Amino acid sequence: MTNPAPDTALDLDACRAAYADLKALGLHLDLTRGKPSAEQLDLSDGMLSLPGSGVVKDAHGTDVRNYGGLEGLPAIREIFAELLGVPAAQLLAQGNASLTLMYDTLAYAMLFGVPGSPRPWSREETVKFICPVPGYDRHFAVTRELGIEMITVPMTPDGPDVEAIARLVADDPQIKGVWVVPTYANPDGSTVTTEVAHRLVSMPTAAPDFRIMWDNAYALHHLTDEQTPSADAIGLAAEAGNPDRVIMYASTSKITFAGAGVSFLGSSPANIAWYTKHLGIQSIGPDKINQLRHILFFGDADGVRAHMRRHRDILAPKFAAVEDVLSARLGGLGIASWTTPKGGYFVSLDVVPGAAARVVELAKEAGVALTPAGATYPHGDPLDRNIRLAPSMPPLEEVRSAMDAVATCVLLAAAEAAAAV
Amino acid sequence: MTNPAPDTALDLDACRAAYADLKALGLHLDLTRGKPSAEQLDLSDGMLSLPGSGVVKDAHGTDVRNYGGLEGLPAIREIFAELLGVPAAQLLAQGNASLTLMYDTLAYAMLFGVPGSPRPWSREETVKFICPVPGYDRHFAVTRELGIEMITVPMTPDGPDVEAIARLVADDPQIKGVWVVPTYANPDGSTVTTEVAHRLVSMPTAAPDFRIMWDNAYALHHLTDEQTPSADAIGLAAEAGNPDRVIMYASTSKITFAGAGVSFLGSSPANIAWYTKHLGIQSIGPDKINQLRHILFFGDADGVRAHMRRHRDILAPKFAAVEDVLSARLGGLGIASWTTPKGGYFVSLDVVPGAAARVVELAKEAGVALTPAGATYPHGDPLDRNIRLAPSMPPLEEVRSAMDAVATCVLLAAAEAAAAV
Repeated sequence: MTNPAPDTALDLDACRAAYADLKALGLHLDLTRGKPSAEQLDLSDGMLSLPGSGVVKDAHGTDVRNYGGLEGLPAIREIFAELLGVPAAQLLAQGNASLTLMYDTLAYAMLFGVPGSPRPWSREETVKFICPVPGYDRHFAVTRELGIEMITVPMTPDGPDVEAIARLVADDPQIKGVWVVPTYANPDGSTVTTEVAHRLVSMPTAAPDFRIMWDNAYALHHLTDEQTPSADAIGLAAEAGNPDRVIMYASTSKITFAGAGVSFLGSSPANIAWYTKHLGIQSIGPDKINQLRHILFFGDADGVRAHMRRHRDILAPKFAAVEDVLSARLGGLGIASWTTPKGGYFVSLDVVPGAAARVVELAKEAGVALTPAGATYPHGDPLDRNIRLAPSMPPLEEVRSAMDAVATCVLLAAAEAAAAV
Repeated sequence: MTNPAPDTALDLDACRAAYADLKALGLHLDLTRGKPSAEQLDLSDGMLSLPGSGVVKDAHGTDVRNYGGLEGLPAIREIFAELLGVPAAQLLAQGNASLTLMYDTLAYAMLFGVPGSPRPWSREETVKFICPVPGYDRHFAVTRELGIEMITVPMTPDGPDVEAIARLVADDPQIKGVWVVPTYANPDGSTVTTEVAHRLVSMPTAAPDFRIMWDNAYALHHLTDEQTPSADAIGLAAEAGNPDRVIMYASTSKITFAGAGVSFLGSSPANIAWYTKHLGIQSIGPDKINQLRHILFFGDADGVRAHMRRHRDILAPKFAAVEDVLSARLGGLGIASWTTPKGGYFVSLDVVPGAAARVVELAKEAGVALTPAGATYPHGDPLDRNIRLAPSMPPLEEVRSAMDAVATCVLLAAAEAAAAV
């Protein structure tokens, strides 16, 4: 495809005709969630027979079948400590979902307070969190559920707008934290630079118990040879004299099995002791058999790195297809811009203001499910502009078809908007 | 062994000599926790290779590797719905620990309230729970952690003293719930009769949001042919017009693997909807691969029943050994009484008042670890009398040795107490 001239591309009748053709295809495609594809899940097929008959002890002689081992098996903590850049003693290995660790962290904070809290957060008149936007809808849902007010700041190519955050937290003791997806952010793909991380962990905060929820979900999920490393926020925070400010989360959900992986929580010794104290009332220990399964499957950190290259081999062509189709169909028209992420699971697409919901609606009617417009904002997208695209799940050819459909919808919505002016 | 006359048996010098002989054995035995033995865990060895390469879908075609399926796989819910006597639609299948489900239930109650709550429990001036004693220390720990006051009532052979409970809850709206282990209770082995269950679910409560935490941990864990069935508390509550009063918990921790089983929460449709609403913010779904593993291993409810007979074959001789040694060494002396449970994991031993902590201390010095005296009471055992014995974990011969040691300690403590009077 070559780009037609803008005036031709945005001719309302032509766009309507193209959309009618699209609907006639009867597509049934889904770009809503950042789920790994079956082909990616197949990469971990060997785990489905592990640990194997009679294999019931880890390297330390612990019977992984029985109760106990609250902090997780040492070997899985060591492997991911290396990968995540945190001492193993400061990294817990838990159940199948880092989302649960994030929820439980904030639930404990509400019920009991965190180290440094004058009182449980639920005893504060108001608790506020900063949410960089666009961001991850499940973060917003956890925050909303716990009655925490959300204040948005914009994302930049270097992570959240740290100067805006620093201004807000300097004076308002009700602001207790900020959500950060530091590497290949959901949805805009940006990575927090060391400079931004340093500012985040060292900025003065009016709240004595301010926390950075550092959701490093995509730390290892590279799409290029750059393999952008994550900033060492926990180390930087300790150096800055704010050791307890950062709590890091990660998991193997997008490494092995989305629903049956191992999750991790890394932080300062004081935060780990605090979390473990409460966790020990809630749980006798995580599923250690599944942790041994992961240990046996990977062997070491290099095993994980090699595995991630196989994911990249599957994912990179899908992201390239998104880029190709969007460039071919929408490039140079001035009606859309989008990210070209070097890792992670999403492409963030901005259309003409006021048209995002219309694009999603048009796509839905044409059989292409997109994340609801505004989902990347806690209170909806004020400009109705942002759409999150998740190309990981469908096979490559379906990604192409879906993106072609999205482009058709973006064009029609833009043409409609132009006609309405 | 035959019982000596009481006066001979309790001769202080003889008891001291026997204890010295015991210490000389240099034992290293552990009766502290209700853990399954390695032999029991071996019964589920076949699960360690399941689901097997390429086996990634359940009977409904769901890819168990991916995200989702918040309520658990239908087939595992159906199997345990039959076993636990609750409709599958009212039973959630979750992660590896029912303790976590109990904690989360009460954490949600504190943060948000339950159906019928005028406000979140954390907004009440005081929240109280009734704890039948002796009871389970982890229940008490959850309750204490959440700042809930604990009121004790005695256990009876038919379950908790329901008339004492009914009197308390009739007038005090601060009493929001009661812990019940309905079948083969921890530690006294008693089972709630249908009459007691009916009274519990139908008694008037001053609190509009009173909950029975029905921890049916040992529903299937029979030691005799009686196979005492559990009272249908959820059904009885619905009949009594209090459908939301009962929340049932269970797991396969003492069926398959203690640390890697599947947990269950059963209740009224309103409670299930309430729990699921909050769970859906905390989790994208449980480990469905592990649920499929259980489905494939058991096949159906009869598969579970057959499996539990194999557990019984291992456990019953250990409980018989406890009974044999205690009868032989302590029977007829008037210094100890103990339960002879028909299921579950514990024997509850009462020694002379004021001597339980001393028995545990003596045993520890002789190399036999017992559950700390008083652990079965939320504020310690006021009579310092109760000791929980957990004979499941050690091999049979060690159970005999440990119980012989316990008997020696009980005798010495009783002789010391008599001498001190």
